[in-house]
Amino acid sequence: MKRITLLLVGVGTLAGIVVFTTTTSRNVSAQGVAPIFGTKIPDGYRDWGFISVAHEAGELNDIRTILGNDPAIKAYREGTLPFPDGAIIAALHYRFIPSAENNKAFGRDQSFVAGAPTNVQFMVKDSKKYAATGGRGFGHFNNDGKTVDDAFMKTCFPCHQKIKERDLVFTRYAP
Amino acid sequence: MKRITLLLVGVGTLAGIVVFTTTTSRNVSAQGVAPIFGTKIPDGYRDWGFISVAHEAGELNDIRTILGNDPAIKAYREGTLPFPDGAIIAALHYRFIPSAENNKAFGRDQSFVAGAPTNVQFMVKDSKKYAATGGRGFGHFNNDGKTVDDAFMKTCFPCHQKIKERDLVFTRYAP
Repeated sequence: MKRITLLLVGVGTLAGIVVFTTTTSRNVSAQGVAPIFGTKIPDGYRDWGFISVAHEAGELNDIRTILGNDPAIKAYREGTLPFPDGAIIAALHYRFIPSAENNKAFGRDQSFVAGAPTNVQFMVKDSKKYAATGGRGFGHFNNDGKTVDDAFMKTCFPCHQKIKERDLVFTRYAP
Repeated sequence: MKRITLLLVGVGTLAGIVVFTTTTSRNVSAQGVAPIFGTKIPDGYRDWGFISVAHEAGELNDIRTILGNDPAIKAYREGTLPFPDGAIIAALHYRFIPSAENNKAFGRDQSFVAGAPTNVQFMVKDSKKYAATGGRGFGHFNNDGKTVDDAFMKTCFPCHQKIKERDLVFTRYAP
């Protein structure tokens, strides 16, 4: 499912391809993460607008929220395609875990919540800088401090190309 | 699981108990909803900050995001308990549905996303106005235009009381 999230890139020369707009994150979830391929976590992404939620079962077994900066949210709401340069989408991934306290209150085992954060991914639109990858730069930041290798990153763009009709973005806006 | 969401109230005289701060919602998800018990949907709630996500299986079978206004987000991040008066938490509920297009791209059936919105619920903190219900006013707005009855609303506060140690709020902040 790494392949069906919003991010990650596939081109030969990844180094330097992804350069986000700001330097460091003030966010809790940015603690301990290591930028890869020279990328930086966009400042303030944790305050971005809500786009949607999803659950990926299987090996990923995560629950996630998709957030967007103002240009991304505006494009979603207005149905603008392709997304404008500067639009950035973030996918915040958490372990998908049962909530014992919720289930106890409800008297039934049915509640699943966000556990420990696993990683955060970004997809930034810049039609010139990232022309070789559909106008998209991608980044992945693990919360455990581990980075990912080129082979991992190379799986992303080919998959996102499958949703060309929505400018490489799988996630639909949740009203 | 209505009972373990963030809202809903239980007292004899529900009418007039919930009075939110603004008049109408500009938001897409507010279209067609009917205020109940005299409540109004807080203006601009769809732009509020992200708190967490969850999936409720069973009869509810939903996926949801929990958002908060600035005072709520600040309290969460600073670990402030009880929440300050004026803090409002919103729970946006969507049908939990498989994503055929995601699964196709991934080559595996594992992706579940937000389907049609079902309802939005609010919990507002006002220790004086809602003293009889733990300082909390609750509201529920269906997206199909249907309202809920008193019996439904009365199930909420007794359940939320079970999480008194976190000021009646089940949802934990997702970093």
